[in-house]
Amino acid sequence: MDNRKHIEVCFTPGEYEYFKDEYEIVVVIDVLRATSAICAAFDNGIKSIIPVSSIDAAREYKEKGYLVGAERKGQIVDGFDFGNSPYSYIKEELKGQEVVLTTTNGTKALNIAKDADTVVVGSLLNLDALCKWLEKQDKNILCLCSGWQDKFNLEDTICAGAISEYLLATGKFTSDEDSSIAAKYLYLSAWDNYMGYLKASSHRRRLKNFNLNEDIKYCLTPNQTDVIPILKNGKLVKL
Amino acid sequence: MDNRKHIEVCFTPGEYEYFKDEYEIVVVIDVLRATSAICAAFDNGIKSIIPVSSIDAAREYKEKGYLVGAERKGQIVDGFDFGNSPYSYIKEELKGQEVVLTTTNGTKALNIAKDADTVVVGSLLNLDALCKWLEKQDKNILCLCSGWQDKFNLEDTICAGAISEYLLATGKFTSDEDSSIAAKYLYLSAWDNYMGYLKASSHRRRLKNFNLNEDIKYCLTPNQTDVIPILKNGKLVKL
Repeated sequence: MDNRKHIEVCFTPGEYEYFKDEYEIVVVIDVLRATSAICAAFDNGIKSIIPVSSIDAAREYKEKGYLVGAERKGQIVDGFDFGNSPYSYIKEELKGQEVVLTTTNGTKALNIAKDADTVVVGSLLNLDALCKWLEKQDKNILCLCSGWQDKFNLEDTICAGAISEYLLATGKFTSDEDSSIAAKYLYLSAWDNYMGYLKASSHRRRLKNFNLNEDIKYCLTPNQTDVIPILKNGKLVKL
Repeated sequence: MDNRKHIEVCFTPGEYEYFKDEYEIVVVIDVLRATSAICAAFDNGIKSIIPVSSIDAAREYKEKGYLVGAERKGQIVDGFDFGNSPYSYIKEELKGQEVVLTTTNGTKALNIAKDADTVVVGSLLNLDALCKWLEKQDKNILCLCSGWQDKFNLEDTICAGAISEYLLATGKFTSDEDSSIAAKYLYLSAWDNYMGYLKASSHRRRLKNFNLNEDIKYCLTPNQTDVIPILKNGKLVKL
């Protein structure tokens, strides 16, 4: 009998319904930029983040006096404090604070996955720490890529492939899904030169047009923090 | 100004809604086995194929006296003449006939795409002929992978990647979407040894369990025919 747990990859929030209920842990990934910004925020000492799906929900929190980040299509939404640039969250005045966040893809994926037993936040920033923690859990794991407006994206897939490859190499995990196999192959062919590889990525090109090269460089630099944000009662907190 | 046309890849029927309306030609791909069987059928001289989405619709045709193929989850549905094995369509008695077909993934994708200007059927069996024809059309092209029960699959993606790579190499086409870039990379890393690569594919393993190795070998052997099936008024015919 095969006692290994599964590590699988779901490419988009839209496909999550065909995966859910089989995985105790869901790792939500939005490399450019929501989950990178969330990791940066906790590394900087933010107390908690409330992820919301809609601009309306974000606005309600804003009216109640919360600090609120809101991003759509790569840009800060008018009337909000910040978007999803990680640099917005590395500020002294945010230490110990609770903030609210809504983004095009990442917070949507977080909310779709919220009924899973355990939901954690993954990015390249916390890759090693996350992999080591996942290895110890002895649970079935799904990497849920946020994608870009419900379409597949490369950077989330490569991050998911990196997590898969780490866990598969321990011998304690197995992968069945074609998406997981593809993610692993894309990661293996990309890692040595992933900045160049991601240059070909449509979303990266989109962000470059907004002069967000510094953000991109930051989000694509692995292992800058050991924090693992986890969803507890609708709020992200540090594990 | 960039006058090149687009060649893009959509991984699943579920994502088609985010792509449609931008492409004059949709190439529907279901390598294991619907679109391979359809190519084999036209190569064998079948007159036309009516693709239907549901078993109920297929049953209605059956009651009217049509020859009807019906497959679900890799197996022939009880009460129907055949499933989607290409070998079922390479029979003398089918020459000149009209048949009805419903399959788990392929006919669903065909019906989702039916409102596009032009819908053609792609597989590894007609790869070269299809690529040469597509090159001449000067239109935006979307490869629509049928996937497996709305999830990504490798063999359709690799076939789509092969089509993309051919068209990109002509210099007349460009790709923007991350899914297209990933398909191309997966094709480039797979082609030299794609049987081995597809051994890792979940769907191939699933078919192997049904003793369908001969079908798989057939479907993965490129360029066995020059036919290009095309959808005209709800029926597939030979172009």
